[in-house]
Amino acid sequence: MSVDAALAWVDDRHDQLLARFSELLRIPSVSTDPAFAADVQRCADWLVGDLQRIGFANCQAIATAGHPVVYGEWLKAGPNAPTILVYAHYDVQPVEPLELWETPPFEPRLHEGRLYARGSIDDKCGAFANLIAFEALLETSGTLPVNIKVVFEGEEETGSPAMEPFVRKHKDLLAADLMLICDGGSEPDQPLMFYTARGIIGAEVKVTGPSHDLHSGLVGGAVQNPIHVVSTIIAALHDQTGRIQIPGFYADVQTPSATEQGLMAAQEQEFFEMLKSQTGRDTFWANELGSLVARTTALPTCDVNGVWGGYQGAGTKTIIPAEAGFKVTMRLVADQDPHAILEAFSQFAQSFASETAEVIVTKGPASYPVNLLYDGPVIEALQAAFEATWGKPATLYRQGGSVPIMGMFQRELGMNLATLGFGTGENGHAPNEYLLVDEFFRGVATAIHFYTNMGQQAA
Amino acid sequence: MSVDAALAWVDDRHDQLLARFSELLRIPSVSTDPAFAADVQRCADWLVGDLQRIGFANCQAIATAGHPVVYGEWLKAGPNAPTILVYAHYDVQPVEPLELWETPPFEPRLHEGRLYARGSIDDKCGAFANLIAFEALLETSGTLPVNIKVVFEGEEETGSPAMEPFVRKHKDLLAADLMLICDGGSEPDQPLMFYTARGIIGAEVKVTGPSHDLHSGLVGGAVQNPIHVVSTIIAALHDQTGRIQIPGFYADVQTPSATEQGLMAAQEQEFFEMLKSQTGRDTFWANELGSLVARTTALPTCDVNGVWGGYQGAGTKTIIPAEAGFKVTMRLVADQDPHAILEAFSQFAQSFASETAEVIVTKGPASYPVNLLYDGPVIEALQAAFEATWGKPATLYRQGGSVPIMGMFQRELGMNLATLGFGTGENGHAPNEYLLVDEFFRGVATAIHFYTNMGQQAA
Repeated sequence: MSVDAALAWVDDRHDQLLARFSELLRIPSVSTDPAFAADVQRCADWLVGDLQRIGFANCQAIATAGHPVVYGEWLKAGPNAPTILVYAHYDVQPVEPLELWETPPFEPRLHEGRLYARGSIDDKCGAFANLIAFEALLETSGTLPVNIKVVFEGEEETGSPAMEPFVRKHKDLLAADLMLICDGGSEPDQPLMFYTARGIIGAEVKVTGPSHDLHSGLVGGAVQNPIHVVSTIIAALHDQTGRIQIPGFYADVQTPSATEQGLMAAQEQEFFEMLKSQTGRDTFWANELGSLVARTTALPTCDVNGVWGGYQGAGTKTIIPAEAGFKVTMRLVADQDPHAILEAFSQFAQSFASETAEVIVTKGPASYPVNLLYDGPVIEALQAAFEATWGKPATLYRQGGSVPIMGMFQRELGMNLATLGFGTGENGHAPNEYLLVDEFFRGVATAIHFYTNMGQQAA
Repeated sequence: MSVDAALAWVDDRHDQLLARFSELLRIPSVSTDPAFAADVQRCADWLVGDLQRIGFANCQAIATAGHPVVYGEWLKAGPNAPTILVYAHYDVQPVEPLELWETPPFEPRLHEGRLYARGSIDDKCGAFANLIAFEALLETSGTLPVNIKVVFEGEEETGSPAMEPFVRKHKDLLAADLMLICDGGSEPDQPLMFYTARGIIGAEVKVTGPSHDLHSGLVGGAVQNPIHVVSTIIAALHDQTGRIQIPGFYADVQTPSATEQGLMAAQEQEFFEMLKSQTGRDTFWANELGSLVARTTALPTCDVNGVWGGYQGAGTKTIIPAEAGFKVTMRLVADQDPHAILEAFSQFAQSFASETAEVIVTKGPASYPVNLLYDGPVIEALQAAFEATWGKPATLYRQGGSVPIMGMFQRELGMNLATLGFGTGENGHAPNEYLLVDEFFRGVATAIHFYTNMGQQAA
């Protein structure tokens, strides 16, 4: 069987593969600091070279307005086999504070089953695990079970400013049946697969009143207080149940499917425990709107993240301030359009303006929610792969946070998405980042199974 | 006529009187700085000595928990004549920043009709003008037309912490028919007399939510946001017309008399112009509640002076903060009880507490509103005095700000109050404080007329 041969090929070469992985980890591809631009390019070139070495075609580091995107393809599985677009990113976070690293971040160190290095879990593992899987399959059976296109990003840690124009320009090149996002990880004894993330929009609101701070004893009662206006806007955002009051806010919110409801119910108790430990409380807010999981992942939210105005020092200062303001972010779910909601919020806030107080809204970033696959053949192929390697399926979970780039991929490329993460370990974005090596190779085996399962579905 | 003789006595001695006033101004009686405590005592002793010199009895610097109170009395006008308790304060503000003074603050300098010195308008003039008036009347007619008690405070600039216990302890000593507050001034060509001041209460409110700041993307929708609670409390303080919504808030608010209404109407246009220049706007707030003068002087107000919570820096930080808060002050009018209103506010704010958010109210200072005389014999005697010296009556005005000590005097001593200010000039509490010398002597003449008028009313 081709899977067994490929798995054995990997098993026979752990040390060599880790040595080659270490080559990749030694390149300080810090995308956020322009001083490392040449290293980012060198990292892209290394990956292009490795794709060529294992037999991929059309390998190139495609220039963008930012850092290069690594592309390569292997399309000889035939027209009946699906084409999978495999995403990972090869850039890494800065290493500061350097003094907290026990060994240098770009000198990989293997210790007690952990591979310490910057980028080991976030996310060079995502690129390299796939390279191993592809090479193992090609070396042992001369072919891949599916068509593969890889796209390895070089600026994920900077917020991916160049990726949207890149994707728009290269839609034909990136066309595929499925996009597999390989960024993230699992718990050591439990594989995880997230299948939804919320969009996010942000705005800053400033309310201006008198031309300068005034004595509240002398003019209070005649001069509208910007703090009161700010508070009135914020208070009007929710009703008493916690439901958001911006007109049209919920119009495009999709109700989770029965399958999703089941997945959500299975997460509820764990989520309650998590919230309890995070908040120091065992009662929560807005209970009428839905379960904890629903409220934090399947429903949109609106939170003021900061408010200010007037005097904040010790004691009393009897002023009516000239202005006050707040920052707000909202998490959106499919099919809410972030630009439309941002505009609706802006109009809502501005409806509180008057002859005595201006309301100025500065719109911030707007990113789309994303719904990935949670059932169907692709998920079956993934779960079978997890069963074969972990002895159990991955827990499908929803996340309340946002992964802006996935929403962009989904919207621009119009294809299904699924996730497969290889970065099980600790300290991503922190000193002493490390990868659990056994889990990593278990992930490689999962990938080999998954691609094989996908090929068999097509056969 | 005794008035003419007294006025002539003063006119003949301008230079000598200013020289003696300069002795008083040279004493750096800065009450806020303990380093000047001996100077404050020396200033009190100087006043006691001067009261004795001009023929007052029972002169003493009475020790208090703070700085001494200067007392003296002249009670030989007979039982039919009224007794007037004359208040001024002899302590002064600090002089910093010293480098902005053109000449040293405690070296009085006469220049172009201005007497420059710290304390020249606030409020050594109030004490010394009365001393001149008393001396002139005593020297020219051997008597005063009314009985006089003087009480010169030594800690007004520190908020008068020791005065309430002092007054409570010395009620018999201070008993009188009228208290004349000699602290303040006029415009150069228009005498002013304020007849009401609002009380003030303050509080700080803190709302606590989760035990620490949380990621709003991960827990938003389940964790109540303290900023939202703070905003809901603030927004609930007023209805859309600007009327305050704290239960019972207006229960004890007195409607101004017809006379007051007339006085207020006369102030309205001037007040509009003042507000226009202060705010940079020509439209105002809460117009339905009353005139501008009514809203800022005859009605209570509630202003949040500061609000804070969460992230206030640049860009976005997606948190639900552990807490948020605000500072509020309210201006009260007769007969609102500051302690009762503060308690009503506290209960109102706490009614927004829930299982997911505590509301903690810290009560601040509470002072009573004060209503002084605005008509009747005393005001007639004052206005006749102004007519005789300025050629026109004083403008009776209401002030929106607070003079906590007056409310205390009124409440503790249970007597009528009126104001007569001598401090016409500029830069009280600021560098280069100066008194307009001609206006000061016009005030001395007004006092001579007033005391004489009061004596004639009794005769």
